[in-house]
Amino acid sequence: MTPRPAVVLLSGGLDSATVLAMARQQGYICHTLSLDYGQRHRSELDAAAALSPLLGAVRHNVVRLDLTLFGGSALTDASISVPTAGPGEPTGAGIPVTYVPARNTIMLALALAKAETIGACDVFFGANAVDYSGYPDCRPAYVAAFEALANLATKAAVEGARMNIHAPIIDLSKAQIIARGHALGVDYSRTVSCYQADAAGRACGVCDSCRLRSAGFAAAGIKDPTRYQHSA
Amino acid sequence: MTPRPAVVLLSGGLDSATVLAMARQQGYICHTLSLDYGQRHRSELDAAAALSPLLGAVRHNVVRLDLTLFGGSALTDASISVPTAGPGEPTGAGIPVTYVPARNTIMLALALAKAETIGACDVFFGANAVDYSGYPDCRPAYVAAFEALANLATKAAVEGARMNIHAPIIDLSKAQIIARGHALGVDYSRTVSCYQADAAGRACGVCDSCRLRSAGFAAAGIKDPTRYQHSA
Repeated sequence: MTPRPAVVLLSGGLDSATVLAMARQQGYICHTLSLDYGQRHRSELDAAAALSPLLGAVRHNVVRLDLTLFGGSALTDASISVPTAGPGEPTGAGIPVTYVPARNTIMLALALAKAETIGACDVFFGANAVDYSGYPDCRPAYVAAFEALANLATKAAVEGARMNIHAPIIDLSKAQIIARGHALGVDYSRTVSCYQADAAGRACGVCDSCRLRSAGFAAAGIKDPTRYQHSA
Repeated sequence: MTPRPAVVLLSGGLDSATVLAMARQQGYICHTLSLDYGQRHRSELDAAAALSPLLGAVRHNVVRLDLTLFGGSALTDASISVPTAGPGEPTGAGIPVTYVPARNTIMLALALAKAETIGACDVFFGANAVDYSGYPDCRPAYVAAFEALANLATKAAVEGARMNIHAPIIDLSKAQIIARGHALGVDYSRTVSCYQADAAGRACGVCDSCRLRSAGFAAAGIKDPTRYQHSA
């Protein structure tokens, strides 16, 4: 096909880096977008900026938006602790305290704005319903609802284009995501998944996100290249 | 009913001021939200901050988000002129250059985040399909699609609450909106609708928004209290 532009939401984590590699493999000219929403783990933003050109995107934008104004999540509110159950132990049922209110809706809305301004009809998004089953805005029905909205919301859609919200890893396990990205040459040592990574991007190894990631490498049979704050 | 909290998107213009007055009349405890998206007409933000307590809201938040990063609209891109057809003349068919890509989707997403953090299930929004028929994200089908999304996206919805996106003026003419707000005591001299108002909030009188507003007061038979830069 003729190369077409796409917007790829890139957090700097393992999932969205894999999604960028998948979009590139499909031939899209990728414009990446990160949201600086006052998250604790600032080094993931540095990781996103470095990963974007490494994985073949043509442009990277960071949108600043202060969600700490709203609070309500362990990732944006300093008064709520990040859960650090022992490795392998669940941190509790239901929606985790790391859920950021309406974050994915905000990020997809920004991606839609970016798509409109560059004439793109495709947005790629690293939602995952397997590992993040407690997050309402990581479910396939949510992505379908946003795609329906995008097809009513935009100038492009009114003028006859079809807007597509791609969530290519939504049904994959962490191990499957890692295997896919590994085959596409993603250097996972450059990605930051930890909710409380240090300034150098080194992971804590104990938060929910670290435990999921570490178990994913083990299950995929691929050596974990993550840089940890405390070597085991 | 027991007073319930609601989030009201307040731009500082005539439409959203009327919506706030309507939400208050329905008994909601109103939290207002403005988006500072780098718009030309900065004085509407000052108007919103002043109107919020005047119209009985308990709290006002401004979220800063630099949409000029994206460009693509006469309201955010200094290289595109605001249309100023003569009074009564249309400025052309189709979607106006003052359309800001995905702006309403971004604003509703932020309102949803705010609603989640304060435990509100109601969001009020001044979309109008009559005067802004060229804007895709001012149509009833768009609002319905966002409501559907909100009911999949949020922790509250997952836990059994019903999220409501209210667009109470969507089908009203400008004259009907003005008549409604006038009856509720809205002081329209404090609202700023002009796309290129000066720092004191005085209107140009010639842009699309000024012409719609002026015609609305005339049609409603209510004296236009707008402060203009050049008195007629």
